[in-house]
Amino acid sequence: MKLLTYTTKDNKESRLGFIHNNQIIDMQDFGDISNFPLPNDMLDLIDMGYEIIEEITELISETPENFFEEIAYEIDEVTFLAPIEKPRKNIIGIGLNYTEHVAESARTLDTTGKLPTKPIIFSKPPTTVTATNTNVLLNRNLTNQLDWEVELAVVISKKGKYVPKSEALDYVFGYTVINDISARDCRREGQWIVSKGQDTFAPMGPILVTKDEIDNPHNLNLSLKVNGVEKQNSNTQFMLFNINDLIEDLSTVFTLEAGDIIATGTPAGVGAGRNPQEWLHDGDVIEATVESIGTITNTVKEIKQ
Amino acid sequence: MKLLTYTTKDNKESRLGFIHNNQIIDMQDFGDISNFPLPNDMLDLIDMGYEIIEEITELISETPENFFEEIAYEIDEVTFLAPIEKPRKNIIGIGLNYTEHVAESARTLDTTGKLPTKPIIFSKPPTTVTATNTNVLLNRNLTNQLDWEVELAVVISKKGKYVPKSEALDYVFGYTVINDISARDCRREGQWIVSKGQDTFAPMGPILVTKDEIDNPHNLNLSLKVNGVEKQNSNTQFMLFNINDLIEDLSTVFTLEAGDIIATGTPAGVGAGRNPQEWLHDGDVIEATVESIGTITNTVKEIKQ
Repeated sequence: MKLLTYTTKDNKESRLGFIHNNQIIDMQDFGDISNFPLPNDMLDLIDMGYEIIEEITELISETPENFFEEIAYEIDEVTFLAPIEKPRKNIIGIGLNYTEHVAESARTLDTTGKLPTKPIIFSKPPTTVTATNTNVLLNRNLTNQLDWEVELAVVISKKGKYVPKSEALDYVFGYTVINDISARDCRREGQWIVSKGQDTFAPMGPILVTKDEIDNPHNLNLSLKVNGVEKQNSNTQFMLFNINDLIEDLSTVFTLEAGDIIATGTPAGVGAGRNPQEWLHDGDVIEATVESIGTITNTVKEIKQ
Repeated sequence: MKLLTYTTKDNKESRLGFIHNNQIIDMQDFGDISNFPLPNDMLDLIDMGYEIIEEITELISETPENFFEEIAYEIDEVTFLAPIEKPRKNIIGIGLNYTEHVAESARTLDTTGKLPTKPIIFSKPPTTVTATNTNVLLNRNLTNQLDWEVELAVVISKKGKYVPKSEALDYVFGYTVINDISARDCRREGQWIVSKGQDTFAPMGPILVTKDEIDNPHNLNLSLKVNGVEKQNSNTQFMLFNINDLIEDLSTVFTLEAGDIIATGTPAGVGAGRNPQEWLHDGDVIEATVESIGTITNTVKEIKQ
């Protein structure tokens, strides 16, 4: 399923929906007409377990098309919010997970350039999350080196500890896109959280695609444009630690929980790695795309603190 | 007020309570007998705003003592849980915030030894939280350098962005103790989250003391014993960045929110800084104490992964 969190002109409270025949169907309304109670929030849906997706998919296939017409919105009638507006813990970020990005980072940042032997982990607080078509805020008191990073994000379906690689995808609910915005000059004693944790530094969306719709998450193109010019273009097949590896390793360190979000790292082409280096400025438009999921578009806005 | 989250022998669901005349009073029960609805969860209480503490305190002072008797437990009848069992985001940790700890860290770890010019920030996921009288889990597949760090933790009362130092304490709800357990050999590309983020690595408690009961949070002794032998002993007056500084800085980076927890850093005396170095082993008992709040006691337990 293609899931989204959205508002409409007439209803400013966020709702859970899905895309059906290129229209938006409200999940709770669909449950009501189907006599099958369904939730109004993405995390509540995830908490029902991945099986609910199979049940809803079957229910949709059995529902006459004219039933949808009454509860459908056109796509341009809704505002897309981040699929998970308020994660229950910090987003788990993975650093240096594409070979060429390890090299470009070592040339220009303070990393060693060695290929990691274990995933490099950091975090982004829930307050970093923002939707497509919103602003990424640039605070010049904190940074003059604002940078982009397109990433495939994995959403976890259920609690897991010591998950073996071979079972890892059983713990996946679906996928979305995250732009892991990074202020390169905000590292403190090497720690990345100030660099990557500022408000609005995790544009997410536009939708959450459940895993049944992605044939192979390890063969998705991902790319990023700034003001229409392509800066990043790679494929998830080039991850150093793939999703199975990451879930095995992360679940050894932490208990993974339903609704956890893993941003799986960015390929080469970030601003810090370019010659000369390029940084984001007020008004710049960033488009981050992952194949089979979509594009999130955000505009940089300089703020006065 | 001295607030706690607890269970009893007869009720294994966690409850919110407070200490009154050396007994435990259930918060919701107290609300019921007072015709003043009160919540059953610490975060729900914090969400009511700090003013609720003043109202409850007044209500208690107006309540005849015999009213409490019916709803009171003896302290040894309850099990103390972490005051905030499930934080809504990662705990915000502050590194290298006591001068002598900066020096001992540089001697033995990979930090620079320079006094930080801004707070060093990291995070501990909600899954690190554990109560007093529980086990800290030692996974030998991950670490052979398990270490202790007693810290004063600050709980935030309300949303704040760009909070000036002078108003910072208006954003404090209260204080608790955190033992910032750290596996020194788990740094990855310098990032601390694997070192500090493993399950059970944030013993917290035993209670949350609201700010009205702490005359000066910048003059509290804090100390830590391992197997009865004192390892750390200092005072919060020696923080490099005090609570006002931290709230100003953190709220510039992140939007602070009600229920956020800041672990304000540890003084000298950690195992990594000793000569020879000392690490925690199976069965070791760690007691972390902050004046006016109390002591959390945890036993190290080696687990088979």
